[in-house]
Amino acid sequence: MPEGLVTFPKATISRFPLYFRALTEYYHQNIALVSSEEMAQKVGVTPSQLRKDLSYFGSLGIRGAGYDVAYLLSKIKVILGMDRKRRLAIIGAGKLGLALAGYSGLKQHGLEVSALFDTDQAKWGPINEQLMVFPLTELAAQRERLGLEIAVITVPKAAAQKVATLAVAAGFSALWNFAPVRLEVPPEIIVQYEDIVVGILTLSHHLARKLGT
Amino acid sequence: MPEGLVTFPKATISRFPLYFRALTEYYHQNIALVSSEEMAQKVGVTPSQLRKDLSYFGSLGIRGAGYDVAYLLSKIKVILGMDRKRRLAIIGAGKLGLALAGYSGLKQHGLEVSALFDTDQAKWGPINEQLMVFPLTELAAQRERLGLEIAVITVPKAAAQKVATLAVAAGFSALWNFAPVRLEVPPEIIVQYEDIVVGILTLSHHLARKLGT
Repeated sequence: MPEGLVTFPKATISRFPLYFRALTEYYHQNIALVSSEEMAQKVGVTPSQLRKDLSYFGSLGIRGAGYDVAYLLSKIKVILGMDRKRRLAIIGAGKLGLALAGYSGLKQHGLEVSALFDTDQAKWGPINEQLMVFPLTELAAQRERLGLEIAVITVPKAAAQKVATLAVAAGFSALWNFAPVRLEVPPEIIVQYEDIVVGILTLSHHLARKLGT
Repeated sequence: MPEGLVTFPKATISRFPLYFRALTEYYHQNIALVSSEEMAQKVGVTPSQLRKDLSYFGSLGIRGAGYDVAYLLSKIKVILGMDRKRRLAIIGAGKLGLALAGYSGLKQHGLEVSALFDTDQAKWGPINEQLMVFPLTELAAQRERLGLEIAVITVPKAAAQKVATLAVAAGFSALWNFAPVRLEVPPEIIVQYEDIVVGILTLSHHLARKLGT
C-alpha cells in the first residue's frame, strides 16, 4: 500500500471522515463525478482546502470533469483503515459504554463493537442478541477469541489508568479513551483521546464572546 | 473583558480545556507555581507550545519562578466562559442524551444540564431528583423559564436538521450537535460539531499503518 508511506497532517486526517461521509452519499445517489466546489460546500470547507487535502492521494481525475466518486471512496477507505473490519472492546458498561455500543455510526465505518467488559457482576451477560458484557478478568482471553483490536475506555476517570494498563497487558495495541485523563502507556501503543468537554468549552468560549458574558 | 478582543487560533482554544484541567489539579494540590516543562508534560504538549499558547494571556509571571496557578486559572475560566454557569438543554433522551446528562465532566466545567426534551411520550417525566424530560413542544417555554442557553442535539441523523431549526426558532443561539450531519442554520448561530467517528477513524488510520493491514 503506497498510502502507508505518506504522512498526512493531523488536521487533514481529521477531515477525511467528513470526505468519506460525503462521498458515500454521492455514491448511493449514483453520482459518479463531483466538483470540488460542490463537495467542499457539502463538507463545510473551502474548495482550495478540499483540493489540497485530496492532492495527497495523487492524480485523481481531470480538472473540470470533477472527482471520480468511486475511486476516491476506495482510496479514503484504505487510508482510514476501513477496507477491513476492526473489532472493538468497550471497557465500562455504563451509560456511555452502552450508548457507544448502540451507535450505528461505528458499524457504518467498519468498526464493530464485539464485546463489553465490566467489573460489576450485575452487568455481566447478554445485552442483545449479538453482544455480551464479560467480566473484566476475561479481557485477554476474549480479545484472542473474538479478535478484538481496539480497547474503548469508558470507565470513570479514577479507574482509567488501571484499565489502560490491563488492556495493554491483555495485548491491545490501540486505545480509544473517553476518560478525561492522560494515560501512561508504552510508546508503541496508539492512544486516541476523546474529550467531549473540549467541544462544549469551545462553544462556551464563542458564546461568551458573542454575548459579552 | 480585554480577552474578548483577542482572537485565539482554533487549535489553541482546543488546548485550553486541557490546561484548565491541569491547573485545577495543581490548585487542589496547593501548588502555587508551576514550570512550563512540568505543566507541558502533564498536558502532553511541548513546553514551547505551552509557552506560546499561554503568551496570549499577556505577562504571566517571572520566567524561572514558573506560572502562577491561581492567576492562570482565573484567566482561562474567563476565556472559556466558565466564570458563569451555562444551562444546557439536551434534545433527544436516548442513550447518548442520558449518558451526557449523567456526565460529571460537564458540571465540573460550569455546564449544567437543566432539561431534556423528546418527542416520545414514554420518555417524558423525571429521570432523577433534578432532571425532567419534557415534550419537545415545550422547548421555547422551558428555555425561557429555565434560562437554557445551549441546545445539545442527540437525536438520530434524520431528525437533526428539524430539531436544529426548532431550537433556533425557540431562541437558542448555540447548538452542540452530536448527529453526524451538517446543519443549516442562520450565520449568527454558533454550532459546535461533536463527531466521535472522527476520533476512532484517526485511530484506525494509525493502526492500519502500524499493522500494515
